[in-house]
Amino acid sequence: MAQKPGIPKGTRDFSPTEVAQRNYIFSTIKEVFEVFGFQPIETPSFENSSTLMGKYGEEGDRLIFKILNSGDYLKKVDEGLLTNKESIKVTSKISEKALRYDLTVPFARYVVQHQNDIVFPFKRYQMQPVWRADRPQKGRFREFYQCDADVVGSKGLWQEVEFVQLYDAVFSKLKLNGTTIKLNNRKILAGIAEIIGAKDKLIDFTVALDKLDKIGAEGVTNEMLAKGISEEAISKVQPLFSFNGTSQEKLNQLQDMLAQSEQGLQGVKELRFIVDNVEELGLQSAKLDLDVTLARGLNYYTGAIYEVSAPEGVKMGSIGGGGRYDDLTGIFGLKDVSGVGISFGLDRIYLVLEELGLFDDVALPKPKVLFINFGETEAAYCMKAVSALRVNGIKSELYPDAAKMKKQMNYANRRQIDFVVLAGESELEGNNYTLKNMQSGEQQTCTLQELIEITK
Amino acid sequence: MAQKPGIPKGTRDFSPTEVAQRNYIFSTIKEVFEVFGFQPIETPSFENSSTLMGKYGEEGDRLIFKILNSGDYLKKVDEGLLTNKESIKVTSKISEKALRYDLTVPFARYVVQHQNDIVFPFKRYQMQPVWRADRPQKGRFREFYQCDADVVGSKGLWQEVEFVQLYDAVFSKLKLNGTTIKLNNRKILAGIAEIIGAKDKLIDFTVALDKLDKIGAEGVTNEMLAKGISEEAISKVQPLFSFNGTSQEKLNQLQDMLAQSEQGLQGVKELRFIVDNVEELGLQSAKLDLDVTLARGLNYYTGAIYEVSAPEGVKMGSIGGGGRYDDLTGIFGLKDVSGVGISFGLDRIYLVLEELGLFDDVALPKPKVLFINFGETEAAYCMKAVSALRVNGIKSELYPDAAKMKKQMNYANRRQIDFVVLAGESELEGNNYTLKNMQSGEQQTCTLQELIEITK
Repeated sequence: MAQKPGIPKGTRDFSPTEVAQRNYIFSTIKEVFEVFGFQPIETPSFENSSTLMGKYGEEGDRLIFKILNSGDYLKKVDEGLLTNKESIKVTSKISEKALRYDLTVPFARYVVQHQNDIVFPFKRYQMQPVWRADRPQKGRFREFYQCDADVVGSKGLWQEVEFVQLYDAVFSKLKLNGTTIKLNNRKILAGIAEIIGAKDKLIDFTVALDKLDKIGAEGVTNEMLAKGISEEAISKVQPLFSFNGTSQEKLNQLQDMLAQSEQGLQGVKELRFIVDNVEELGLQSAKLDLDVTLARGLNYYTGAIYEVSAPEGVKMGSIGGGGRYDDLTGIFGLKDVSGVGISFGLDRIYLVLEELGLFDDVALPKPKVLFINFGETEAAYCMKAVSALRVNGIKSELYPDAAKMKKQMNYANRRQIDFVVLAGESELEGNNYTLKNMQSGEQQTCTLQELIEITK
Repeated sequence: MAQKPGIPKGTRDFSPTEVAQRNYIFSTIKEVFEVFGFQPIETPSFENSSTLMGKYGEEGDRLIFKILNSGDYLKKVDEGLLTNKESIKVTSKISEKALRYDLTVPFARYVVQHQNDIVFPFKRYQMQPVWRADRPQKGRFREFYQCDADVVGSKGLWQEVEFVQLYDAVFSKLKLNGTTIKLNNRKILAGIAEIIGAKDKLIDFTVALDKLDKIGAEGVTNEMLAKGISEEAISKVQPLFSFNGTSQEKLNQLQDMLAQSEQGLQGVKELRFIVDNVEELGLQSAKLDLDVTLARGLNYYTGAIYEVSAPEGVKMGSIGGGGRYDDLTGIFGLKDVSGVGISFGLDRIYLVLEELGLFDDVALPKPKVLFINFGETEAAYCMKAVSALRVNGIKSELYPDAAKMKKQMNYANRRQIDFVVLAGESELEGNNYTLKNMQSGEQQTCTLQELIEITK
């Protein structure tokens, strides 16, 4: 019996239309990356397990897809481990390779491995799939693409300015107007932690503060108190409860509030540099929003933090994010290489563009001209024209069989082909072609040269 | 202690230059595929093991990379299997997914799964990596790309003609002149088998015949006799020992030789159709060669067989191949779908182009203009120009730090940047820029508008 065809959950097939739409996003991002001076690299789909394991926390280790060793892989495994079915311990004995979990760790590995060939500061981009054994759900897959741009080897804050511009340039080019680029700084968060008296309360604090819109200042205060943050501490950061106005006003409030925290003030200074310069240079369609509740990847980032949200009204998590990290390559033995980078969430951007109908201009992958096949002699005559059209870059094809006319026209219609060429006995005699415009229904007789000019 | 960074054997990192060169090949092939009317699809990197296992023979099953199930994967495995360390039997219990081994089986699965959405004849192309646990060696990797184009749902021989043209178009566009497209037909081979009296001798026969250049007619005859092919049989296929001349001459010889084999004559007829039409339409740079020793994928193909060899003088195996198969989708329950397809060997084409110096025209991924960073005020002034250049599509960047001039110029030189812009106090005063052509060393003062025009 034949197998019922299917694919693993969390993975997807992409139809020609979907590939074209996805490539439109990829090529837009790629074009902007390159105009900003970034260079592409690619790394293998699987890495040595030792490169990936332990880099994403316990949860991450669990979600990494492991590849089984080849051959008689059980041979050297301790029998006790097998008998006791100690899955986790056995894994490291029977699997030496694992699928890429993100692009950041492989990039760090790449920088260290090729440090002698790299010209620093190194501006690289990378657009490749990653794999996670996550529970699949809407907008979350087990195989998905990441599009990352990073600069390593420079501490200059201009990079932070550029990444805001880069987000704006990409989303403007995609005609996705009204995105919000949220900006924060790890040092501001450290400053707030200092002020409220405890680092370990910082996450509770930001989570509570983030609910301000929903539960009001009193609700937030109560939640903070319940989490063990003192009334005195809360009063010190009171300005954050009415954290509104322009970025400049917000910066001034932060500056006052964090006056006692050296690190906090440094964060304000950095943020001010970015905000001032972004405002001076201007953005095309995005809005910059200073958001002190933004706290992604706390352990990882050390300076600026970014997150991009879709235009209002579109229900979707963040469609991009990133930040500054002061020591990415240290794990592989190269110290003091500061980096800053951002990522685009391809699959989410796809869903947003689809919802907003922004794929209308994407050219579908289809031939422009179909030559009807009336039989061997006519087909041979048509193939000369097909070859001439193709040399001129016009996507065209001959229907492969001398099928019934209705079937061939049906094919042209279903594939939405613009022009159909008919060449029967009389056309062969007259050394010309009958060209039918499938949209208007109009027909005309023309020479090969005219055929090329009209369909070009 | 820090880990020493490395990657699994048989895999590769690609530097920016390598990515650009590889993309040049990819995009050339893609462009030609599309101009010929092919549409892209993509399938997941891993498939259900049941989709892949048993499709590539025993050797193939061994070379497929298996992915370990998540979680407590040993829990349900029979203890006896574990204790006896029965690796092969355990595999099917602890691994449900496997990495793609080629693009053909996933394509067959795709066609069957999506048959109701597909317009037949379906012309698809696919360019994705595949993985094989092969022993790595020169030109053979564990992760490599395949670029396939197939047509399913038509038995028309025009497709066979088109694929010869397609190979020629791609290699001509890559300026790889002098390739040879070898052509044979499975039915010719079946005819020869009939004539020599035994199907099981066919491989011995073609292998021996292929040595004609090296060991001469007598050597070949002796080898055939040693393999148990009768003298009488050999005399019947004697024409193949002097199988020279034009394709037409070869076809005539085959026609005489295979007169007693219906299948053989059908093969001659098909070959004649392809050869006649290819000759009539002409090729740009490739040579068509009728080669009866060509026997790739015997069990798989049922009609035409292709193989492309690199220009003479370049030591490299085939750089492409393919053929007609009459029942690809049957394994997944869809009968009677004939297909024909070809594949490009990306990695080998890369090596050939490199050897012949055919990457000279590939634009390296680098900015065209570097703005020197003299400090905050000057940098802010430059960033306005950088933004203006980028809007005009000119790849440009500001050096991220106010480093020493020598360091910044060194960076420009090492990255082979064409133009450097210097803007210090006097330029800010004059609202202009000093542009240095890094090739000629020439310097000139210009306005922003002139800057855009010159560097565009």
